[in-house]
Amino acid sequence: MTIKLYYASGACSFVPHSMLEIAGATFEPMTVKLHKNEQNSPEYKAINPRGQVPVLVDGDQVITQIVAIINYIDAKFPEAGFIPKDPLARAKFVETLAWMNNTVHPTFTHIFMPFKYSDDAAAQEAMKGYNKGVYRQLMGELQGLVQKAKTEGRDWLGGVHCGPLDTYALTLLRWGTIAGINPEDFPELWAFVQRVAQVPAVARAMEREKLQLSLYKP
Amino acid sequence: MTIKLYYASGACSFVPHSMLEIAGATFEPMTVKLHKNEQNSPEYKAINPRGQVPVLVDGDQVITQIVAIINYIDAKFPEAGFIPKDPLARAKFVETLAWMNNTVHPTFTHIFMPFKYSDDAAAQEAMKGYNKGVYRQLMGELQGLVQKAKTEGRDWLGGVHCGPLDTYALTLLRWGTIAGINPEDFPELWAFVQRVAQVPAVARAMEREKLQLSLYKP
Ligand SMILES: N[C@@H](CCC(=O)N[C@@H](CS)C(=O)NCC(=O)O)C(=O)O
Ligand SMILES: N[C@@H](CCC(=O)N[C@@H](CS)C(=O)NCC(=O)O)C(=O)O
Repeated sequence: MTIKLYYASGACSFVPHSMLEIAGATFEPMTVKLHKNEQNSPEYKAINPRGQVPVLVDGDQVITQIVAIINYIDAKFPEAGFIPKDPLARAKFVETLAWMNNTVHPTFTHIFMPFKYSDDAAAQEAMKGYNKGVYRQLMGELQGLVQKAKTEGRDWLGGVHCGPLDTYALTLLRWGTIAGINPEDFPELWAFVQRVAQVPAVARAMEREKLQLSLYKP
Repeated sequence: MTIKLYYASGACSFVPHSMLEIAGATFEPMTVKLHKNEQNSPEYKAINPRGQVPVLVDGDQVITQIVAIINYIDAKFPEAGFIPKDPLARAKFVETLAWMNNTVHPTFTHIFMPFKYSDDAAAQEAMKGYNKGVYRQLMGELQGLVQKAKTEGRDWLGGVHCGPLDTYALTLLRWGTIAGINPEDFPELWAFVQRVAQVPAVARAMEREKLQLSLYKP
């Protein structure tokens, strides 16, 4: 039984999507069109009642939440060496992953889907504006992580291979360009993300999702 | 060198705090007074530049982010059996943990610290009100997880022992009572949380933090 990954073009599901490509996994890519609200169709909600991507289906098992899916793919393809085995290195990896997932990612949601946090139009506008500023700060922090890796002689954020932290960084910077942030404002992060995009497996996932790296319009 | 845990009374740091008690770990509890803004003091920011609890310090290593700290404590005290070893069971455990951490927890932050998401007073009020409704729904989902565990013959959310999912549930329900949610509205969740609070190690952590389980005022 092959693995199925439910993903949406350009969404956070790009992280497990590219991981499966990097691992050389055989999988069935199942596209979910968020702009057509397919995530809220009865069919999809039967798979994930929370109406979100990503979802990984392996046999009769359904796994949601990026962080959980990353753990699962790592365990299933140990030879890819996605998550370090040493407890301390693993904790530092998870620290960055958790921060991307619980802080940077939801900050973008405040800009892109402010209706998730208030049904008041003025409050939505206020939140959008405020969180653009926060997002810019977070891009600075993310660039700091790229610089730190470089200083420590690591080519990638999470270890010796290109993995989920790197493709999450790509996704988050790409979202920043949608929020009106010029990637050139973060030159080291931008150079890093361009390097990630050139990894053949990552490029394959980008091509399937028809992704442009920057959507910034001056 | 003993482990140090930086925690604040009643905060999310209760989760690693109670884990260390359950594991029977020797550790130094370092209290951080959020109401005195100690998390933003230069001394504390030197430890965690993000100005948040929890922080775990082990020797010269500093780990932030609950999800990472939980992974680290689990690896350090394997005999406590906090996180299941089987890849699928582990993924389902992490799925619930990630959801608590990236969805339920930040929803409460919108109620308790709305200034993190907007500097506009009206927007803050709008967000507070809206997210109280969302939080109530999430408490229903959380109760659903408690019911599911019961149906599957599990005494605890995460497996055979009381662990981080259970004390996170306690923390989240307790926060709900601060947000004006009557815990009696979720009788099975409320009974579960009262059972968690009676686990001697959890009770010790509650006593150190001087926690009352419900702060609900009708
Ligand atoms: N907490 C979830 C968040 C997933 C999420 O934010 N998914 C977004 C795409 S990036 C989504 O499906 N949004 C559609 C919607 O919420 O309607 C995770 O970590 O997997
Ligand atoms: N993403 C962090 C969140 C930690 C967090 O929300 N900490 C809160 C207490 S529950 C805090 O320190 N708040 C003080 C502040 O933000 O000023 C984690 O998962 O550890």
